[in-house]
Amino acid sequence: MREQILRLQQKMRELGIDVYVVSDSDEHLSEYVSEHFHALEEFSGFTGGDGKLVVTANTVGTDGNGINDGGEAALWTDGRYFTQAEQELAGSGIELMKMGEPDTPEMNDWILEKLPAGGVLGFDGKCTPFTEGEALITKVGRKLKSRAGTKACAHKHVVTNRDLCGELWEDRPAQKASPCWILQERYTGKTAEEKLRELADTMREAGAAAHILITSDDIAWLLNLRADDIPNNPVFMAYLLVQLPAEGTDAGSAEEADMPLVFLYTDEGHMTDAVTAYLEDLHVTLRPYHQIYEDIQRLEGPVLLDKKRCNYELVTSLPGETEIIDRMNPEMEVKCCKNETEMANIRIAQHKDSVALTKFMHWFKTEGLAMARAAETAAAKGNTDVPRLTEWSAAEKLHSFRAAQPGFFDESFGTISAYGPNAAMAHYAPSPDPDKDVEIQPHGLYLVDSGGQYPEGTTDVTRTWSCGPITQEERQAVTLTAVANLRLADARFLEGTSGLVLDYAAREPFWSRGMNYNHGTGHGVGHVLNVHEAPVGIRYKAAAPEGAWPLKEGMYLSDEPGFYVAGAFGVRIENLVLVQHDYTNEFGRFMRFETVTFCPIDKSCLDASLMTKEDIRLLNLYHQRVYDELADDMNEDERMWLQAACEPLVQDPEAIPV
Amino acid sequence: MREQILRLQQKMRELGIDVYVVSDSDEHLSEYVSEHFHALEEFSGFTGGDGKLVVTANTVGTDGNGINDGGEAALWTDGRYFTQAEQELAGSGIELMKMGEPDTPEMNDWILEKLPAGGVLGFDGKCTPFTEGEALITKVGRKLKSRAGTKACAHKHVVTNRDLCGELWEDRPAQKASPCWILQERYTGKTAEEKLRELADTMREAGAAAHILITSDDIAWLLNLRADDIPNNPVFMAYLLVQLPAEGTDAGSAEEADMPLVFLYTDEGHMTDAVTAYLEDLHVTLRPYHQIYEDIQRLEGPVLLDKKRCNYELVTSLPGETEIIDRMNPEMEVKCCKNETEMANIRIAQHKDSVALTKFMHWFKTEGLAMARAAETAAAKGNTDVPRLTEWSAAEKLHSFRAAQPGFFDESFGTISAYGPNAAMAHYAPSPDPDKDVEIQPHGLYLVDSGGQYPEGTTDVTRTWSCGPITQEERQAVTLTAVANLRLADARFLEGTSGLVLDYAAREPFWSRGMNYNHGTGHGVGHVLNVHEAPVGIRYKAAAPEGAWPLKEGMYLSDEPGFYVAGAFGVRIENLVLVQHDYTNEFGRFMRFETVTFCPIDKSCLDASLMTKEDIRLLNLYHQRVYDELADDMNEDERMWLQAACEPLVQDPEAIPV
Repeated sequence: MREQILRLQQKMRELGIDVYVVSDSDEHLSEYVSEHFHALEEFSGFTGGDGKLVVTANTVGTDGNGINDGGEAALWTDGRYFTQAEQELAGSGIELMKMGEPDTPEMNDWILEKLPAGGVLGFDGKCTPFTEGEALITKVGRKLKSRAGTKACAHKHVVTNRDLCGELWEDRPAQKASPCWILQERYTGKTAEEKLRELADTMREAGAAAHILITSDDIAWLLNLRADDIPNNPVFMAYLLVQLPAEGTDAGSAEEADMPLVFLYTDEGHMTDAVTAYLEDLHVTLRPYHQIYEDIQRLEGPVLLDKKRCNYELVTSLPGETEIIDRMNPEMEVKCCKNETEMANIRIAQHKDSVALTKFMHWFKTEGLAMARAAETAAAKGNTDVPRLTEWSAAEKLHSFRAAQPGFFDESFGTISAYGPNAAMAHYAPSPDPDKDVEIQPHGLYLVDSGGQYPEGTTDVTRTWSCGPITQEERQAVTLTAVANLRLADARFLEGTSGLVLDYAAREPFWSRGMNYNHGTGHGVGHVLNVHEAPVGIRYKAAAPEGAWPLKEGMYLSDEPGFYVAGAFGVRIENLVLVQHDYTNEFGRFMRFETVTFCPIDKSCLDASLMTKEDIRLLNLYHQRVYDELADDMNEDERMWLQAACEPLVQDPEAIPV
Repeated sequence: MREQILRLQQKMRELGIDVYVVSDSDEHLSEYVSEHFHALEEFSGFTGGDGKLVVTANTVGTDGNGINDGGEAALWTDGRYFTQAEQELAGSGIELMKMGEPDTPEMNDWILEKLPAGGVLGFDGKCTPFTEGEALITKVGRKLKSRAGTKACAHKHVVTNRDLCGELWEDRPAQKASPCWILQERYTGKTAEEKLRELADTMREAGAAAHILITSDDIAWLLNLRADDIPNNPVFMAYLLVQLPAEGTDAGSAEEADMPLVFLYTDEGHMTDAVTAYLEDLHVTLRPYHQIYEDIQRLEGPVLLDKKRCNYELVTSLPGETEIIDRMNPEMEVKCCKNETEMANIRIAQHKDSVALTKFMHWFKTEGLAMARAAETAAAKGNTDVPRLTEWSAAEKLHSFRAAQPGFFDESFGTISAYGPNAAMAHYAPSPDPDKDVEIQPHGLYLVDSGGQYPEGTTDVTRTWSCGPITQEERQAVTLTAVANLRLADARFLEGTSGLVLDYAAREPFWSRGMNYNHGTGHGVGHVLNVHEAPVGIRYKAAAPEGAWPLKEGMYLSDEPGFYVAGAFGVRIENLVLVQHDYTNEFGRFMRFETVTFCPIDKSCLDASLMTKEDIRLLNLYHQRVYDELADDMNEDERMWLQAACEPLVQDPEAIPV
């Protein structure tokens, strides 16, 4: 058994904990977490980032007899990581639990089986969503209850206030406290004061006296602050407590009496003089990071919070009699609809990013592929000591084009630069290690999924293009993906329609041929924030009610169908779109998407015979817009290349308007 | 003020009730109700069938001052009934509240405003869904609480156990107690005993000790009984209580111990000797209809029920400490997926019904229209004393074709036989009154939406065809409707996709042109049961989670897009489909629809230039199937006509396979 697991088991025995769950999350339930929270990797060796590790202190059979000092460990992860986990867990003594496979037990069922009667369960309640912790305890509690035959309180068997991994982890990276900066009103379109007043109104309508918020992108949005605590996500680790002033309180002017009381719990390290002054102006009270766990023990009145997006420890720190108004964080509902100022800025950010990606595409298609062809020729002659085009070097080159854009300050996520079969892996990352970096050869498909952070906005774009000859299977896949992307972008729909309904526009070209891609077609995107932003989405499988969230004006989301053949190739074409009002008539308010990403779709990969006339018209219209948007920012070589790349595709010259 | 309202207000004052809500529902929350429950019509004069009447005993302003003996009355209904309600409420003193209009208050808000502080609210708890009653009381309770400044119990201000309308209604029609009959296993594919055993398993899994069921179609399905209590719905009024035998009970054989205890609360009048013997064999205990309200006051253990589909009075009759497991009635989940036997029978019912409708279409298009043309010619000569083709006579003719089919025992709903502008009204019914019956003229469009009840199954079909020349607007509407119907019927999708996703297939031809139809595209259909059966549906607006119910094998639903221009015309084309497994490959289980309704789509109304080649291929394929299915059941005239009606539509002779 891996040494870290043995040490954890020793600690568990000292504390009398029989089963302990190691979370992959941070205290704010972030999608991506900083190194400080890489406990799963530290203790299991698995670097996949999405998984849960369960460790038992002793092996106790379900019959409650056979005891030894060994204990067990098992790691649950999903299909994206099976191969990686198999390699990384080999020899660790940790059993791999492949989620979704027929013989794999549910994690909670496995825990129920392993936990001895009257046993003690442990998990870090700070890094566990309340709903998850509650579901696990409910499951385990029932078993205990039925064994004991009494209605014993399950909670006494659970330890949730100890971060055992943190206690044992010697070289644990410190939690980052990056300096905050203020995102100015010319970018946000709304001051933090306005947002706080609106929040107070929402709280009043909901009958809440207080509101607890722990999700870092919601806090950053609400206060118009940004930072750099998590790679690619410009957020900072904090808790927020908002209270309505008690009625009848004499709080000075009527205007001040209207403002909620705001307490920001965060590390002092985030503060600069400017930010401190800014928060003082806002009447935001700074408190020590973890002080919230104590402060809320004295809260009175109904509390508005999102049980799915609040951690277990915080919710259970509230007074027992607290009335919890459990609903989606109200910040999310406002934040996902970008205002006019945000939309205008997004178009600026998208222009810059489109210029960078298109310059990269030109470079790749000309110099890059020339390098690849020369390397292939040299290799045929036995000469391997020549410059090569690789996944990593291509990503670096793309970064240089982005970095040349004014205001660019980060990628919005790690660039997926994937050649050939690597593109079939959904979360593939190229390697900077020259021994692992993959050479791009002058044939087949290359996929690049990337995005930038600018003060004007966040971008996310994917293109798949040819490096030379491609197969008919690859050509069909690129064509159907382009058709799916264009048809969805052209969809018209009545206000209030959800992404569930529109997903069909992108799926139909695949489903009608017995094909599918195993991911959503679109996700919400933040404004100078996280590249994945709930609750907006376009997907056919979705947990209601948030899954069926209606599309409204200003929503900013991706349109990214794809097609993947494991071990062979992957295709994805992604543009970002804004939901816009189109026109209103007797049938209602019709909406449409405004595509804001501009970069050619590689015509050399398309089979026009698989496209309808309308598909070709949409492609040609898009390319016309790409050229008009970008031509002035290209040098002469680039412009000539772009012009050719944007020339109309022709299926039937007489039928298609050019 | 209408006299019935004055009497109701008098009664309210006697009982100290300030505001009383008159429901349009029955005790089983049926979609259609028997005459016994037409209290809304009796007291308001409104015959629309879907509305709520609220009556106040005194006019009390929100300031709590101005009191008089008058009282108010207001009726809420939706857009389908505005014109009708305006006419019927004229002079009644009842204010019409047009739901969905910007200035119309929500009913619960209006009640909140009208109810005096410390006032008493009343409604018939037996005819009100628990969730509705609870929402109203919560709304009113808060207002009272905030006025009083204390946490007073809101429930003491509510009277829910008095059916004031019933008490005052002198000539109230008796509640029907039609004799039950047994739907044999060769039609149901599963015995009631098997269904009850499966229900017991579901109850055990859910941790329920008891289950309460009041919805008449679920009870009819579970017991394989049918009756005739409600026009067109072959159900009977009953309550059902199912209890699991206590563990360790010595109930004879192991097999018997496995069976749940079933109590059927219904009127003795439903029983025949055969049914009594059948229920005895099933170990079902018969109890007096309303005895359940007393019996459940002594229930122990968790109770599984559907708060949305249980009435307020019943749920509040449970002991206060009862743990309610609130989920969709488990019967609904099983009932909506038809088994192989049911599907085989449905195909037989559909064949009969398709023969009947197609014979009617032939008769209408030949003899019927000849009559219409002759009447027009005669009228031009001043002769009005000739036979006419009318909406009612056409519906009667269609009934005669259905009645000639073996086993036919009822329409599945009132036939909508609508000429010209009448077809734009969603719930139009032709009139048997010769003065109101509408003549069909030899031009424009005729819409007929109808269905039959057979021992093999329930049908529902709509066709819209020409009576002579039609306008280009009408032609476009029929063409787009046909395209929408055919594309949806041809959709392929992965198992688990919901109707929300597929609705786009039918909406897209309309939405892309800024058009829409203001109803769902599809609803679930019962098996020898109600023509509308939840939770299945195809619609883009849907309340989650049931609205996004996944489509599964055996689901039986309608495909009925349409288009309506008020005052001009209406188009709807409806076939029923069964969800079938298509094939399974590496991407998953692909599903498709099997269309089971066969009747020509009127080619004379189609504009082929609005159809893609694929649309035309789908139409021609469907017509080929219609001919093959029906030709042998037609006489020679009908067959010749059918052959022409099913000949391929041609857009581009060279491109389309014929």
